[in-house]
Amino acid sequence: KPLKEGFCSINKVAHPVGSKGVEDFRRRLKYFFMNPCEKYRARGRKPWKLMIQIVKIAIITIQLVTFGLSNEMMVTFKDENLMAFRHLFLKGYKDHGLGTYVLYTKADIHFVADFLGIQNLTVGNLAYERVNGQFTPLSLCQEFYRNSSIDPGNETFDIDPHIDKDCISVYPGESTENNNLASPFNLSLDFKRLLSVNVYLTLKTINLQTVRHNELPDCYDFHTMSVTQTFTLIDYLLLWFDSVVILACFTSLLLCTRSVIKGVQLQFEFTSFFHSHYNKDVTWADRMEFVNGWYILIIVSDTLSITGSGLKIGIQTKFMTDYDVCSILLGTATMLVWVGVIRYLGFFKKYNILILTLRAAFPNVIRFCCCAVMIYLGYCFCGWIVLGPYHDKFRTLDRVTECLFSLINGDDMYATFLHMRDKSYMVWLFSRIYLYSFISLFIYMVLSLFIALITDTYETIKHHQQDKLPVSQLQAFIAECRDQPESGRYQSDEESEESCCFG
Amino acid sequence: KPLKEGFCSINKVAHPVGSKGVEDFRRRLKYFFMNPCEKYRARGRKPWKLMIQIVKIAIITIQLVTFGLSNEMMVTFKDENLMAFRHLFLKGYKDHGLGTYVLYTKADIHFVADFLGIQNLTVGNLAYERVNGQFTPLSLCQEFYRNSSIDPGNETFDIDPHIDKDCISVYPGESTENNNLASPFNLSLDFKRLLSVNVYLTLKTINLQTVRHNELPDCYDFHTMSVTQTFTLIDYLLLWFDSVVILACFTSLLLCTRSVIKGVQLQFEFTSFFHSHYNKDVTWADRMEFVNGWYILIIVSDTLSITGSGLKIGIQTKFMTDYDVCSILLGTATMLVWVGVIRYLGFFKKYNILILTLRAAFPNVIRFCCCAVMIYLGYCFCGWIVLGPYHDKFRTLDRVTECLFSLINGDDMYATFLHMRDKSYMVWLFSRIYLYSFISLFIYMVLSLFIALITDTYETIKHHQQDKLPVSQLQAFIAECRDQPESGRYQSDEESEESCCFG
Amino acid sequence: KPLKEGFCSINKVAHPVGSKGVEDFRRRLKYFFMNPCEKYRARGRKPWKLMIQIVKIAIITIQLVTFGLSNEMMVTFKDENLMAFRHLFLKGYKDHGLGTYVLYTKADIHFVADFLGIQNLTVGNLAYERVNGQFTPLSLCQEFYRNSSIDPGNETFDIDPHIDKDCISVYPGESTENNNLASPFNLSLDFKRLLSVNVYLTLKTINLQTVRHNELPDCYDFHTMSVTQTFTLIDYLLLWFDSVVILACFTSLLLCTRSVIKGVQLQFEFTSFFHSHYNKDVTWADRMEFVNGWYILIIVSDTLSITGSGLKIGIQTKFMTDYDVCSILLGTATMLVWVGVIRYLGFFKKYNILILTLRAAFPNVIRFCCCAVMIYLGYCFCGWIVLGPYHDKFRTLDRVTECLFSLINGDDMYATFLHMRDKSYMVWLFSRIYLYSFISLFIYMVLSLFIALITDTYETIKHHQQDKLPVSQLQAFIAECRDQPESGRYQSDEESEESCCFG
Amino acid sequence: KPLKEGFCSINKVAHPVGSKGVEDFRRRLKYFFMNPCEKYRARGRKPWKLMIQIVKIAIITIQLVTFGLSNEMMVTFKDENLMAFRHLFLKGYKDHGLGTYVLYTKADIHFVADFLGIQNLTVGNLAYERVNGQFTPLSLCQEFYRNSSIDPGNETFDIDPHIDKDCISVYPGESTENNNLASPFNLSLDFKRLLSVNVYLTLKTINLQTVRHNELPDCYDFHTMSVTQTFTLIDYLLLWFDSVVILACFTSLLLCTRSVIKGVQLQFEFTSFFHSHYNKDVTWADRMEFVNGWYILIIVSDTLSITGSGLKIGIQTKFMTDYDVCSILLGTATMLVWVGVIRYLGFFKKYNILILTLRAAFPNVIRFCCCAVMIYLGYCFCGWIVLGPYHDKFRTLDRVTECLFSLINGDDMYATFLHMRDKSYMVWLFSRIYLYSFISLFIYMVLSLFIALITDTYETIKHHQQDKLPVSQLQAFIAECRDQPESGRYQSDEESEESCCFG
Repeated sequence: KPLKEGFCSINKVAHPVGSKGVEDFRRRLKYFFMNPCEKYRARGRKPWKLMIQIVKIAIITIQLVTFGLSNEMMVTFKDENLMAFRHLFLKGYKDHGLGTYVLYTKADIHFVADFLGIQNLTVGNLAYERVNGQFTPLSLCQEFYRNSSIDPGNETFDIDPHIDKDCISVYPGESTENNNLASPFNLSLDFKRLLSVNVYLTLKTINLQTVRHNELPDCYDFHTMSVTQTFTLIDYLLLWFDSVVILACFTSLLLCTRSVIKGVQLQFEFTSFFHSHYNKDVTWADRMEFVNGWYILIIVSDTLSITGSGLKIGIQTKFMTDYDVCSILLGTATMLVWVGVIRYLGFFKKYNILILTLRAAFPNVIRFCCCAVMIYLGYCFCGWIVLGPYHDKFRTLDRVTECLFSLINGDDMYATFLHMRDKSYMVWLFSRIYLYSFISLFIYMVLSLFIALITDTYETIKHHQQDKLPVSQLQAFIAECRDQPESGRYQSDEESEESCCFG
Repeated sequence: KPLKEGFCSINKVAHPVGSKGVEDFRRRLKYFFMNPCEKYRARGRKPWKLMIQIVKIAIITIQLVTFGLSNEMMVTFKDENLMAFRHLFLKGYKDHGLGTYVLYTKADIHFVADFLGIQNLTVGNLAYERVNGQFTPLSLCQEFYRNSSIDPGNETFDIDPHIDKDCISVYPGESTENNNLASPFNLSLDFKRLLSVNVYLTLKTINLQTVRHNELPDCYDFHTMSVTQTFTLIDYLLLWFDSVVILACFTSLLLCTRSVIKGVQLQFEFTSFFHSHYNKDVTWADRMEFVNGWYILIIVSDTLSITGSGLKIGIQTKFMTDYDVCSILLGTATMLVWVGVIRYLGFFKKYNILILTLRAAFPNVIRFCCCAVMIYLGYCFCGWIVLGPYHDKFRTLDRVTECLFSLINGDDMYATFLHMRDKSYMVWLFSRIYLYSFISLFIYMVLSLFIALITDTYETIKHHQQDKLPVSQLQAFIAECRDQPESGRYQSDEESEESCCFG
Repeated sequence: KPLKEGFCSINKVAHPVGSKGVEDFRRRLKYFFMNPCEKYRARGRKPWKLMIQIVKIAIITIQLVTFGLSNEMMVTFKDENLMAFRHLFLKGYKDHGLGTYVLYTKADIHFVADFLGIQNLTVGNLAYERVNGQFTPLSLCQEFYRNSSIDPGNETFDIDPHIDKDCISVYPGESTENNNLASPFNLSLDFKRLLSVNVYLTLKTINLQTVRHNELPDCYDFHTMSVTQTFTLIDYLLLWFDSVVILACFTSLLLCTRSVIKGVQLQFEFTSFFHSHYNKDVTWADRMEFVNGWYILIIVSDTLSITGSGLKIGIQTKFMTDYDVCSILLGTATMLVWVGVIRYLGFFKKYNILILTLRAAFPNVIRFCCCAVMIYLGYCFCGWIVLGPYHDKFRTLDRVTECLFSLINGDDMYATFLHMRDKSYMVWLFSRIYLYSFISLFIYMVLSLFIALITDTYETIKHHQQDKLPVSQLQAFIAECRDQPESGRYQSDEESEESCCFG
Repeated sequence: KPLKEGFCSINKVAHPVGSKGVEDFRRRLKYFFMNPCEKYRARGRKPWKLMIQIVKIAIITIQLVTFGLSNEMMVTFKDENLMAFRHLFLKGYKDHGLGTYVLYTKADIHFVADFLGIQNLTVGNLAYERVNGQFTPLSLCQEFYRNSSIDPGNETFDIDPHIDKDCISVYPGESTENNNLASPFNLSLDFKRLLSVNVYLTLKTINLQTVRHNELPDCYDFHTMSVTQTFTLIDYLLLWFDSVVILACFTSLLLCTRSVIKGVQLQFEFTSFFHSHYNKDVTWADRMEFVNGWYILIIVSDTLSITGSGLKIGIQTKFMTDYDVCSILLGTATMLVWVGVIRYLGFFKKYNILILTLRAAFPNVIRFCCCAVMIYLGYCFCGWIVLGPYHDKFRTLDRVTECLFSLINGDDMYATFLHMRDKSYMVWLFSRIYLYSFISLFIYMVLSLFIALITDTYETIKHHQQDKLPVSQLQAFIAECRDQPESGRYQSDEESEESCCFG
């Protein structure tokens, strides 16, 4: 009777490889593939990792929301000021959707006067940047070819392609004194060889709205946003919170790395065991089962989150200003963390149909996309070269890609058609054939085929779930062990090392 | 022979639990689950409840349409006036889709003059509000920090975050006399510490268009719309109609509550009967069958309708002004009433495929949505934090949610792509990966999977309908009774109490 | 052997109802249900009806295209002039998509001056309408309440709701003489009781562009477009062509009516035959088979076409001006004619899958739509009453219907979301719940269910086509006759009457 | 044993047609239908054709990208200048999406003055075109009827439809001297009989931006872009590259034509072989198998590419200016080349599901489309004639087609609905019925049916792939040969001729 208890499988007598070592190994494997709840019931191990993940989701989301809200306020302030400046400085500026065309004739270049009077004009806290007690000037820089004599009438030109840059500085202090607005400074633009005129000016303003929300006001000078700043309590709280995030992510990173390493070790053990006992090689697919994809996801997410939070501390203590990198890191980390929640939903039966179907359909979808992308690319190149000169949406190659992608997904088709009027008849005809064939092919054929593909996979998955056959060697090996998590069989080994620390 | 008649089931002799009490109970159950027409045929009971529901649909819809039409006229009038005022008072106001940017320079704040001349300017019946014989003034209020010395040049500031509000009143009567438009009053705006400037003015107008439609003209003063008013015949008719609606809903509410209570009683009877006769417990699903979901829907709808109509009477008699709550209550009630019509359509065979499929698919859809929402939320957070500063549609978190939701359902994709140009290259690249992956994942995978899910459920439902197996204990129990409604078996009991009142 | 030849069915000896009369009748039935080609092969009857239909399609399409092209030119001319007039007369007119808001202050009403100078201002052939040698005046009409004393300040008014209309006429000849533009006439607008001001002016112009295309120029006076006109060759050609259309349609109408009548006669014969021989009643479905739906379609189309062409002649000879009715009649007729082409495509096998599926799915779709429409109507009412005051798309009930319908089919969702900002929080929240639930329900559930429905029907149809079982008594009766059209059996009877005329 | 080796099929003894000639022929056929890799393994033949195709894809894409990028720069330059000119010369020009309405009154025609001052006004290298030392003039041409007396008031006119064209030239040199801007020249426009006024002016400019990118600057005169030009190194490189493209395409063309010819020869051999050995005819489907469709695609693509590259050389050496034809040729060629990549993907199993499904679904889709197009055309005609005068999207027939096509694919529906307000009630009602029925029919029925069709085909294809039965005589004949490519059996014959050259 103790002998029978020792046996892991009591039903399948047809496969009598039941020495004690094999049973133990099989039990260890089964334990390894259990989910946290089952592990708790099997050995009483607290699901520390699960808890840490849940806590992590909460604090990472809080961190992100705080960050986002503070950025939101800042961006709104900057935008409104930028809009006001544009209306002030750019003649006839219109806030159209698609680009702005402001036309200057030679006589119009007297906007410098506006600059000199800005402190009196707009409603807001603006001041000129002052460096070493000096006002920073308005710089008006022109780029031109070094030496050129162009005569469009004779179709001859002689250009030295080296580009010179010449800047003229106007100091606010100066011209307001003599008030000579009509001709404020000597500006000679040689329009013949001119390439571009840029105006740089530096203004400072303080966003007083944030004071109300008990934050320290940020100071913008509309180029960078770094100003030394005294620290307040709120800033210290934010720093502390970021440190907590880093700590939590680091712990999660350690635990998951440990689990992955243990998985790899177990995989090697399993490979050698299978080789020695059954003299069979383990397939790659079986080997990959030991590496839990979710852990990899968490590790990537943690790494991103730690780096991002580090950068964020740097930004808040004004050592760095690389906002974009920081936001991409934090954003991607948060996205991965939320995607990771699906894993925990998958512990409940029936909840994982989305993930299972997506995973099963993935190879087919990729293969299918490869072919579709070829046709798609063909259309992109063709549309770019033929319609590019006549239609704004086909001007550059990446725009064509986006435009066609949008068309497939139901974008404004009529507008695209409409803008291709008034062309030469041949181009008009080509554009019609091009658009009708593209849309019909992709919306009616390719998208329908996509639905067919997914529907097919879904049904396959559903039948698999109902039948539940072990599909690989590994699963067949483990399936022989019928011990329930609650049976107490799993507790005998490794209790000393495991129960103290978290796993 | 009388013994055979007494038997409810004459075919299934294999289940001979046919004492008189059991038969009667079975017949009562079957009668309970009949639809109104069958009930009429079985016991001759008039379908009062059904009739009341039909009447209710009619009068509730009439009430809503009357309410809506009168609001429509009012809103149009208000809008047109508001538009005219904006063009009058806001310099350079444009009616663009996405926000208005009106830029004021210090010199522009002379619009008060416009106000003083408004009675002469616009075409309409406008007058200044007069309280106690005095004209109400135009109030110009500024909010500023109590004490501030800001020097953006030195990057220093010293602000007392307490906010002061200072208002200046201008009386129409005054300045028209001396006609001093250039400097109408002493307005000193300390722009350094200014937070906002608001202008309040109160005007009155009378919408004469409504006189033509035999309604009493409403008087608006563009802040609230409550003015004492003498009652006319039409108003009394409206009040009377609202009372009829309340009465009908109350009757319907009482009848449905009674039916629900009877259902619950029958359920308890059934539970104890099943326990005593078969010694089996009744499942929760079977118990819930006794509570008719449609009655719950009607009860909720009636409650909303009664409350809404009460509020509406309050608004019409000018005791209350909470239009929003009233409209939400009435609107939701009407929607539920119309949804309830499906129940009566379901009495005809084949008409209930929509409801059946939706109900059957519901658990799977919810489970599926849980997973999809996780990925969706991940994308939302990520898009908000990274793209928020660069794109208007990603500015706030709820906008991101709406924007992504719209993208899935075929919104203008190209415009979304387009507005992300002119950014730093890294953000540009991120936005492309972000959008392409999101759209592909959700439109091609998730939506296709949705179709697969619904198609699958539809087929399951169709097969169920063709087979018609009793699926629960309750249905199996009832199915043994083969008496047709017309057989006259159902009339023997309870005729005294039932036939007089409506059920 | 002659006995065997006389038998129509030689294989099925199990059903020996083979007297000569029965055979003949069966053969007549089979001939009746043949398509034109088979009829030609069976009896050599020329497919006159088919030819007439094909000719009809051609000439009706030509008629429509001629009509459409001439209208196109006219409409473009009118639009351009209207646009020019608007820019001339309406101050600050913008050609926005959604309505125009032009605000007039009292001082602006001096546009009459513009009118008087119009002959000198614009570039085009414009002249004032002259009646009996007199110029027609510019009429400036105001509508106002007969008697009103309104005091918005006191919230009192006393209005006589009878509406007066007062018009003032200005004659072009007059004021150009004295050139008194500042105060051209005595215009006293009592703004207190004013309802509307309308300006009517009558101008004439001649569209010279059409002369180039050899058409007689139309003369517009921008109110009606009827001017007496001398007839040219082209006009006579057009009238002749319209007559040809009417003739063709009339012939087709006669032939189809005759076929329908013959079908009905045959149906009565069949019913009495079946009753006397088999003593069985013929089902309604079988009876309806004798009435060819396509003939009904052609008859309706012909009737519309004849009426429409008649009206068109009336318009061209300037007796009538009801362009809308004429275009609707002709347009619908042409649409039906083109839809009718599917019938001829259906003569080839495999081409009729669209029509078959649509017809088979029709009852289910209608039933399904009934339920969906209830939910849809509920949402419409609810959206109208709650969101109407806050959102332009929900202002009137028919707009709500269109807006929600458009949303289901992938319209701009984000814009709809966006415009609901800046409302009270409760309305904002309601709008979100409303839109998300509506879109999810209809796009994900209802549309998916639609696809499931159609897919299911398609598969059913496909299986039916592969099995090809006779499904009705009528089909079973006819199927017993195996004679091929080419066998020559069909030619014996009725050759005298049929072969001469067309059938 | 050597006898058995000689046999191609050793398993199927039931079909002993194993003479040496038959075996050899079967082996040749099998070799013919192998893909390049198998051919390499079978006979060691290098896949030259494959390599040339891969090289071709690369260089054609590079050619296209170079061409496209250079055009992009040119078009941007032209657009910006055109925009600037429009703002300069057209009064009140707005860059709206849908057409521009610029209204001129008689007094406004003084824009010629602007022209004369253009050299001083704008910022850029502009000069008047000079021919033979003379400035080219600004030509102001009017078209009018030769003789006309129009009196709109009397509704009489007398027009000679012959059109005269009268041009007046203004020379820049002239009027700048006397500076007489108010009346620069004698311009008498007889507005009565005027048809159109066109202004032609010729300006020259040099795009200096390109100098920076080491290209020779193009010279535009805004009519054509052909200017004699000295050649630089880069131009020679481009010409050389185009020649390489032509060479590669020509080689590929030759090889593919040779393969096609060999296929046709083999087909004749096979037909006669089959006729002599089995006395059976070969079906057309089997014959077509010998003509590889991919080769046809490559041949077409190569022809287009060679012609296009030739034209491109012509354009670059400024002999031709037909940019449109060149771009259409090159674009289509590139598209076909990329579509051809799918062939190589199809060499891997499972990758060709897209192409297989599309090919299998093609006949059904075409048949289905035929029917759908009939209904579609009916709607087009009907919408054009009825709604044309009232809605911009229905103005011309091709617009209607595009608009309806866009509506099916999820275009802005609400906007289409909206613009049909303010019409006569009958037209309004018609438009609603029209749009609702069209959209419901096409989106819900036709599109769903499309999905059903594709899904059905996909499943058929999948089952075929799993079963893998030889479906034609040809395949059955070849399938009897079981020799693997690596077996060495294929090398014996033709080694002398084949191994030296590429195949």
